[in-house]
Amino acid sequence: MVAVKKVETRRRTRANGERTRQRLLSSAVSLWSEHGQLGLTVSAVAEHAGTTRRTVYHHFATQEILQEEAQRFVFEQLAELASGNTSEIPDPYGFVAGLAVDNPELVRSILLGLMRDDPNENPIFARSCAFYRDAAEKGMLCEGIPTTHAASITLAMWFAAILCVSLEQDPAKRRAQADSFAVTFETMLHKGILTTPFNVGD
Amino acid sequence: MVAVKKVETRRRTRANGERTRQRLLSSAVSLWSEHGQLGLTVSAVAEHAGTTRRTVYHHFATQEILQEEAQRFVFEQLAELASGNTSEIPDPYGFVAGLAVDNPELVRSILLGLMRDDPNENPIFARSCAFYRDAAEKGMLCEGIPTTHAASITLAMWFAAILCVSLEQDPAKRRAQADSFAVTFETMLHKGILTTPFNVGD
Repeated sequence: MVAVKKVETRRRTRANGERTRQRLLSSAVSLWSEHGQLGLTVSAVAEHAGTTRRTVYHHFATQEILQEEAQRFVFEQLAELASGNTSEIPDPYGFVAGLAVDNPELVRSILLGLMRDDPNENPIFARSCAFYRDAAEKGMLCEGIPTTHAASITLAMWFAAILCVSLEQDPAKRRAQADSFAVTFETMLHKGILTTPFNVGD
Repeated sequence: MVAVKKVETRRRTRANGERTRQRLLSSAVSLWSEHGQLGLTVSAVAEHAGTTRRTVYHHFATQEILQEEAQRFVFEQLAELASGNTSEIPDPYGFVAGLAVDNPELVRSILLGLMRDDPNENPIFARSCAFYRDAAEKGMLCEGIPTTHAASITLAMWFAAILCVSLEQDPAKRRAQADSFAVTFETMLHKGILTTPFNVGD
């Protein structure tokens, strides 16, 4: 009995720990988005998440690891987005365009990775291809567009978002440019690639 | 009279020199396209253009300068393309996709420049915007697409071309992928951005 209880307690502790970790990562991403990479410190994350620096250090040994993990966290969200899993991202077009405003370096690093390495090895590209293969099977892909082209063009829209947002220096104008580009992004995808909206049925 | 003749001779010599220079640059770009940057040597250019190494060195003091000038030459052709001036490029979509096969490093370096620097300062972006402003005035731009978005998306298609071509390792397959992407590129632009074909009236 004692052994069973111990296992149960350990399991609960681990689940709590994982929830705390996710909360800290969400705070890290918020801070990063608002203040850039320099705003992503252990103290700021502790304050934002309503916890102590000690707790943050318990989950992330150093500030560098915290930043790396926050980047990985956003990367995973983008991969989800590329898979068409937009259940946690209500406005997928706005999310990408907004990310170009808030985290241009992150978007740039993803685009650089896509350009430099073999896209066959890139998880975001792979998931985007899988999404379009699924869309094609459901008859949602415009005729004559290969799934790899659809995936490439969708990711290329992230490149276009960076360009559009970079046209403005003033933060409010960058935000307005992102909102406006999100509309164009959606229009392009629905006119040229998909026969039905992206996030239908999610 | 003697003075007039001298001026005339000088003018003709300069015109001949300029023609030779253009011919050498065309040879350089062909060699680069076929064999990559390592294939772009003074000897190879002399042989390709049916002239001597001495003539090549007369126009380009070093091999590095020759390579730089060849890059600038393609860059100018791309800028012409971005301006919608396709009179010397019969298949603009195929040209970009083919360049992604033949000179991926060149296309990458242009895309990197666009991402890193202010696009307002980029001549290719500026000319693409000017082209779309002109298209908009002529009623050739789809309703609701800002000219800067049209320019960004067109250049983003170069990014997509690099992705599609990189999917294949075998040169023949890369070429086939480029040809296939050129068709998608044209379709996307005509469905989503332009109401009439790109190179009409050139």
